[in-house]
Amino acid sequence: MIYDVIVLGGGPGGYLAAERAGHAGLNVLLIEKRALGGTCLNEGCVPTKTFLYSAKIFDYANGVGSHYGVSVENPKIDHAFVVKRKNKVVKTLVGGVGFTMKQAKVTVKYAEAKLCAKTDDGFMVAAGGETFEGKNIIIATGSEAFVPPFFEGIKEAVESGFAVTNREILDLEEVPKEFVVIGGGVIGLELASYFNSVGSNVNVVEMLPKIAGPNDNEISKMLQKEYEKKGVKFHLNAKVTKILSDGIEYEQDGETKKLPADKVLLSIGRKANTKGLGLEEMGVELNRGAVVTDAQMKTNVPGIYAVGDVNGTSMLAHTAYREAEVAVNTILGIADEMKYNAIPGVIYTNPELGSVGYTEEVAKEKGINVKVVKLPMAYSGRWVAENEGGTGVCKLIVDVDTNKLVGAHILANYASEFIYGVAAMITCDLDLDAIKKIVFPHPTVSEIIREGIFMYK
Amino acid sequence: MIYDVIVLGGGPGGYLAAERAGHAGLNVLLIEKRALGGTCLNEGCVPTKTFLYSAKIFDYANGVGSHYGVSVENPKIDHAFVVKRKNKVVKTLVGGVGFTMKQAKVTVKYAEAKLCAKTDDGFMVAAGGETFEGKNIIIATGSEAFVPPFFEGIKEAVESGFAVTNREILDLEEVPKEFVVIGGGVIGLELASYFNSVGSNVNVVEMLPKIAGPNDNEISKMLQKEYEKKGVKFHLNAKVTKILSDGIEYEQDGETKKLPADKVLLSIGRKANTKGLGLEEMGVELNRGAVVTDAQMKTNVPGIYAVGDVNGTSMLAHTAYREAEVAVNTILGIADEMKYNAIPGVIYTNPELGSVGYTEEVAKEKGINVKVVKLPMAYSGRWVAENEGGTGVCKLIVDVDTNKLVGAHILANYASEFIYGVAAMITCDLDLDAIKKIVFPHPTVSEIIREGIFMYK
Repeated sequence: MIYDVIVLGGGPGGYLAAERAGHAGLNVLLIEKRALGGTCLNEGCVPTKTFLYSAKIFDYANGVGSHYGVSVENPKIDHAFVVKRKNKVVKTLVGGVGFTMKQAKVTVKYAEAKLCAKTDDGFMVAAGGETFEGKNIIIATGSEAFVPPFFEGIKEAVESGFAVTNREILDLEEVPKEFVVIGGGVIGLELASYFNSVGSNVNVVEMLPKIAGPNDNEISKMLQKEYEKKGVKFHLNAKVTKILSDGIEYEQDGETKKLPADKVLLSIGRKANTKGLGLEEMGVELNRGAVVTDAQMKTNVPGIYAVGDVNGTSMLAHTAYREAEVAVNTILGIADEMKYNAIPGVIYTNPELGSVGYTEEVAKEKGINVKVVKLPMAYSGRWVAENEGGTGVCKLIVDVDTNKLVGAHILANYASEFIYGVAAMITCDLDLDAIKKIVFPHPTVSEIIREGIFMYK
Repeated sequence: MIYDVIVLGGGPGGYLAAERAGHAGLNVLLIEKRALGGTCLNEGCVPTKTFLYSAKIFDYANGVGSHYGVSVENPKIDHAFVVKRKNKVVKTLVGGVGFTMKQAKVTVKYAEAKLCAKTDDGFMVAAGGETFEGKNIIIATGSEAFVPPFFEGIKEAVESGFAVTNREILDLEEVPKEFVVIGGGVIGLELASYFNSVGSNVNVVEMLPKIAGPNDNEISKMLQKEYEKKGVKFHLNAKVTKILSDGIEYEQDGETKKLPADKVLLSIGRKANTKGLGLEEMGVELNRGAVVTDAQMKTNVPGIYAVGDVNGTSMLAHTAYREAEVAVNTILGIADEMKYNAIPGVIYTNPELGSVGYTEEVAKEKGINVKVVKLPMAYSGRWVAENEGGTGVCKLIVDVDTNKLVGAHILANYASEFIYGVAAMITCDLDLDAIKKIVFPHPTVSEIIREGIFMYK
């Protein structure tokens, strides 16, 4: 038999592609080498959210609650329990993905897969000692943490478990006293936040002059300050050179400095998983190790698609979802197109940083005539009610010529949950006059968007 | 001098109308008899949110946290502190409204106002011993709790402070041991929730066969069950007949029953504040005590508008906001129209109930050909991560003929913050194909909407 689609990889991009294709009546084989759900579900987004929710509850007990009239004695967090609960949550959700695959009549095979030949009708894929034929291939093999070979001592540190990635850190049995995070992006900040809450002394070392990746400069700085107040130390423009047995060495302003560590997290970046898949042999074009795709998620080889982290474009689970839909629609002959201008990003720190679209800087680089509306979060009554002594801001980026939003950047809890609405406004091309007619419930934090829109002149 | 607009009442409808009109360059007088912010800010939405946030934090300390690895000893909530903090938050936000009025160059006068004459150019308003002339009048005098005169003993109970409304309850100095809530709508449920958390024995007496007002039947039932688990007792189809000195009497199934009480909350409903405003004298049409308005918020008297609770239509602060905008736009000659089909409603219980648009029942009554997509909240990874042992559901109501949403009803925390997005989808007339292209961040609870849309067939 020949499958309509063979999906390589069962993470968000892969399982969603399989699900959509299956529900559309296609005959689908999904090959996953480890666990359904991929990095996101097993060692990324979801597990960290269980950690961070426990930490937030502990923060309330450990001082924050006193601002709201709640007092406790002897607050404790049981890190081992948190890890165990994380495993339970992951197991439940992985089971859910498996159930979804069954409902969509997707055949799931657990093995490493490799493209091995082009056939008249499609491609041959080898997996677990068998071969399978598929008319279309969707590469969704994801990414893994980049472990920089140029750090002196990295090999020994990784082997001994002294330096870990997002994968191992989530199963750590004990809270390190001294915790060094190399890389102040999303993963680094979320884990710095957790370990800061549960008692580690946390140092974040970042090569760039700012944390929080491509997020708005000013907001990244505000987030940094919030964490500095909580005791996290940031070392910017700092280039790690050496992993020692009890710390790390880095260069900053021409000086060599040292930080003690009981555990080091490597969260410098991620690299696409393209090795050993037979891509080069099939002639699939790669760029710096990632699969090159077009707006229909097609590679240069007709019939082969790539979605999710493996194409290196956006490296977010929800981007993978949408790319998966575009790939499947393309296979089904339904016109669709991937757009990257309204993909939300969230850092689940406390406060959260939610953003979508262009920052002011990027918009200007792109030659868009923008105006920025900036409001302190204190414009929201609910925010004031729930954020005693807190800081927060909302920045809306308006395209003056079209009277439409091109970006929103919000430092405030709940931003994770309401930023999608701005993604909707951008994606569905709503202008400010249309947005003004939307009724936002009061009192909410999300209302800040409405406030901002009305402030624009 | 003659004002372009005189606004009667400084609550959400009034202050927003004044702000918009002021920024549009109109000469505006706002007359408020008590405090800027009205019921919502001073004794409604906002104060209850400070209460409920403290209660949520206390719930974590008082048992909930143990499911997430957090343990404490001797958790306490200081109710007097919560009340004091509420007053501080209210003061801050009332100050904010005052500042907004200044920025919009609105003249604010604190006095009771009364329409006293029609002039050639408009109307005369008497307030605080002076008279003012305005070309346009916006009535925004709000509503107050309905105190049913037909309860035996009500007069004595109110005078003694044994029976209170939303106004007095928020300044209660002590937590009542036995707390009876008459009326299981939004206000009743939110305050039942708070006092249940902080230690009262709570009984809710509701005349209808269900709680949560016009919300979806099944979801209302689920919310009731969640609170029954927490120890709140509900008495449905129960008609209160008597307020005793130490409890209440009600009839249910033909029997007369009694409940003990240290404090009784009257949250049966609200009535429009139209008395003493001179409306009858000016010939303004009322219906059951509320001002009758059209889609431009015009009354039957040209030049007189009514927004917010006083027109009795929707009685929500955010409805008042939008009505205020429509009234001001109409005064400015900008075409606008009030629509009530996409106004979100939130009950800030734990879990929250967020809804917008039609329920299945109402849609069918209206003859809309709908299909309901119903998902348990466990479809959301973040929900699973943060709701150990919880219950939740999302119902989407789809108009089959137009392929558009007409309603969404969600029992889950964060629903308050993300329901506006569905309001946007309905207001801006997005069909399901457009919504499918919106990227929701993962993992969020809001993603449940996307899941539901894709489940619709």
